Amino acid sequence: MAQPFLHQMKSKAKDSRCSNLFQSLLAVRGRVWQQVIMNNMRTQVVIIGGGPSGLLLAQLLHGRGIDSIVLERRTRAHVLSRIRAGVLETGLLDLLEQADAGTRMRQEGMPHDGTLITYGDEAFRIDFAELTGKSVMVYGQTEVTRDLYAARDKTGGQSEFEVDEVQIEGADSDAPAVTYLQSGVQNRIACDFVAGCDGFHGISRKSIPGATQRSYEKVYPFGWLGILSETPPVSDELIYANSDRGFALCSMRNPTLSRYYIQCDAGDHIDNWSDDAFWTELKRRIPAEQAANLITGPSIEKSIAPLRSFVTEPMQWGRLFLCGDAAHIVPPTGAKGLNTAASDVHYLFSALTRWYQHNDADAVAQYSHRALARVWKAERFSWWFSKLMHRFPHHSGFDLRMQRAEIEFLRSNEAAQKAMAENYVGLPYEG
Amino acid sequence: MAQPFLHQMKSKAKDSRCSNLFQSLLAVRGRVWQQVIMNNMRTQVVIIGGGPSGLLLAQLLHGRGIDSIVLERRTRAHVLSRIRAGVLETGLLDLLEQADAGTRMRQEGMPHDGTLITYGDEAFRIDFAELTGKSVMVYGQTEVTRDLYAARDKTGGQSEFEVDEVQIEGADSDAPAVTYLQSGVQNRIACDFVAGCDGFHGISRKSIPGATQRSYEKVYPFGWLGILSETPPVSDELIYANSDRGFALCSMRNPTLSRYYIQCDAGDHIDNWSDDAFWTELKRRIPAEQAANLITGPSIEKSIAPLRSFVTEPMQWGRLFLCGDAAHIVPPTGAKGLNTAASDVHYLFSALTRWYQHNDADAVAQYSHRALARVWKAERFSWWFSKLMHRFPHHSGFDLRMQRAEIEFLRSNEAAQKAMAENYVGLPYEG
Repeated sequence: MAQPFLHQMKSKAKDSRCSNLFQSLLAVRGRVWQQVIMNNMRTQVVIIGGGPSGLLLAQLLHGRGIDSIVLERRTRAHVLSRIRAGVLETGLLDLLEQADAGTRMRQEGMPHDGTLITYGDEAFRIDFAELTGKSVMVYGQTEVTRDLYAARDKTGGQSEFEVDEVQIEGADSDAPAVTYLQSGVQNRIACDFVAGCDGFHGISRKSIPGATQRSYEKVYPFGWLGILSETPPVSDELIYANSDRGFALCSMRNPTLSRYYIQCDAGDHIDNWSDDAFWTELKRRIPAEQAANLITGPSIEKSIAPLRSFVTEPMQWGRLFLCGDAAHIVPPTGAKGLNTAASDVHYLFSALTRWYQHNDADAVAQYSHRALARVWKAERFSWWFSKLMHRFPHHSGFDLRMQRAEIEFLRSNEAAQKAMAENYVGLPYEG
Repeated sequence: MAQPFLHQMKSKAKDSRCSNLFQSLLAVRGRVWQQVIMNNMRTQVVIIGGGPSGLLLAQLLHGRGIDSIVLERRTRAHVLSRIRAGVLETGLLDLLEQADAGTRMRQEGMPHDGTLITYGDEAFRIDFAELTGKSVMVYGQTEVTRDLYAARDKTGGQSEFEVDEVQIEGADSDAPAVTYLQSGVQNRIACDFVAGCDGFHGISRKSIPGATQRSYEKVYPFGWLGILSETPPVSDELIYANSDRGFALCSMRNPTLSRYYIQCDAGDHIDNWSDDAFWTELKRRIPAEQAANLITGPSIEKSIAPLRSFVTEPMQWGRLFLCGDAAHIVPPTGAKGLNTAASDVHYLFSALTRWYQHNDADAVAQYSHRALARVWKAERFSWWFSKLMHRFPHHSGFDLRMQRAEIEFLRSNEAAQKAMAENYVGLPYEG
């Protein structure tokens, strides 16, 4: 991997007390100075975003001998402090294994063969294993990211943190580059391709001329209030609860760490929710049997997330490719966020491998098309499952009865359960 | 069956030229006179409504030795001139056989093993036979009604036409009765039960105190413009077409009689649609391949129908039971109207049989509960299929993509196809 002189010098400077003067000089640089001490590098793929998608792509590419540099705006500690979903599809598990980051997940993750769906005091189970022969793995996204960083450390792959002012140059040319500022030094990485894994608010999607894109969006009229608590989960499996008072989800990270959510108003604030108020409301939304077994405790994290569906297409512009939240958002019902990012990574990894190993330009050109076919299916499932389980403020009496009829049809019809289960465990990666 | 003196006299009067004076006397009767010449009858079940549901119930009851009188507001010729759907579920076919009205249907009906779903120029087939082991029968509702009247004639069952001012008395008592005016004579039929098979605008539902009922309704923001034409159908099977210009349906009554529909504005009028304009628009909404094969001709019927979902519950009040459109309406997408009426007839026939043969009061008390369980499933399917296939004025770009994603999921997923096919051929009658 390219490690030019100035970059090495800068790295040494970081480690050395004697270099305080040099650091200060970097810190007070002006425009001219900035351009003079430009750190020039080269790699094959610049990956913008050091979350699980970017890391997974980097490690998969590494396995095929394709170099990459990962750029992350925050610190590694910050990335690892993010609390996210933790229900992984088989496809993602396979990719983690392939990226040499699957060992701990296999040891500590909890395979789930089914899930409980409740409405009022009624409950039924969707048996993933019986319906599809597959299961899902409950393993926190934070742990996935940690394992991927460990794998990256082991292979000596380059990751840069606290990068600022990231810009993509010449994405529509044959010689793109990414520039960024880090510890006062201006850096430029010449590359073959840029992977935008920097999330919904990242610069990758924003770097694509608006006129070439079309976006689709739905904002749901409610949010999810979630807490993390060091209590054993109320059930061995997840509980998706539809109730007259709104949706609730009983989830978990591990046998002593529970994650619970309740649907709340879009404009609600965590200050309105004491732990007691949260637990009381949660108990009202799940069947009496489960409510009686719920062990409560102080929350160690509490937050409100909005629910949104979003897709931009195409997912590429020249040699810039979008992956995951940079291109699409799903509401969290059904846990398709990270899993769909992983499917993008699969398609991009496959395209780049064909490029480097077989000079296959078509595969690269087809990335967006192939990735989007599966993205829209995940969007449809997340939208359908969200509509099925939540209370919508504008719903009429008829709408409510249709929702109930759909839940009861799911309860009574094996084909409907199978269609749901196939989506939940993850549709196959095609092509 | 009770044929009291005055009723016999009236019947004779109809046939006799000498009785003109008597007829005139009846016609000019005053209130007092009206009460004096009250024709009193008795039967076990009064069936209000001489459409296919009412007739089917009457003939099924006859097969178990249970007497009924059918009351119809219009003439028999009028009933037989109504043009309605013509896709029959297996459950209805079995009931027609049981009512001794299935012979011609078996000979002339066209079994359909599948249907074509198109969107733009894309098309795929749902194979009912392969997915469910069942098929549907294309046989016009008019023909069903004709066969049921022929069966009724054969058994000598009593049907009264052009009845007016129908009123239900004492439905919440053990001794209900139905009164009506016919050819100027006031009639009263004492009975055990009343079956309201008189449609959405009939008096049966309106006879139930509003406070005991809850109704659910959705009015769709469009209608169906339909024509009947003496041309061979464009395809051996039905074509449900989703297009940017709105929904279209290519259906048929028999090999030389086609029925076509296009989605139109709710406020549209047939005067706006020449035959040419209809055919031109239809061709734009179906794939080019099918459009090229479409044989057009003059319409022999043209009408616009609104689309509505409606359910009232419970479907009974004391000894009055609602069947079919009297209790619920579905949008026509998926042809569940007559089929769901037939499922009500099945449940009511079963309950009345248990009453008369086993003194089982529970079965009668449970009629509404049992019938509604299946009604809501049919409502859900019709609502889902309508939403899947039509253009809605308020749909956002995201909504349109979700609709397309759902069609493509149906195309690609066998479990989803099976769930759809099981609904289309008809869910089982339970209990």
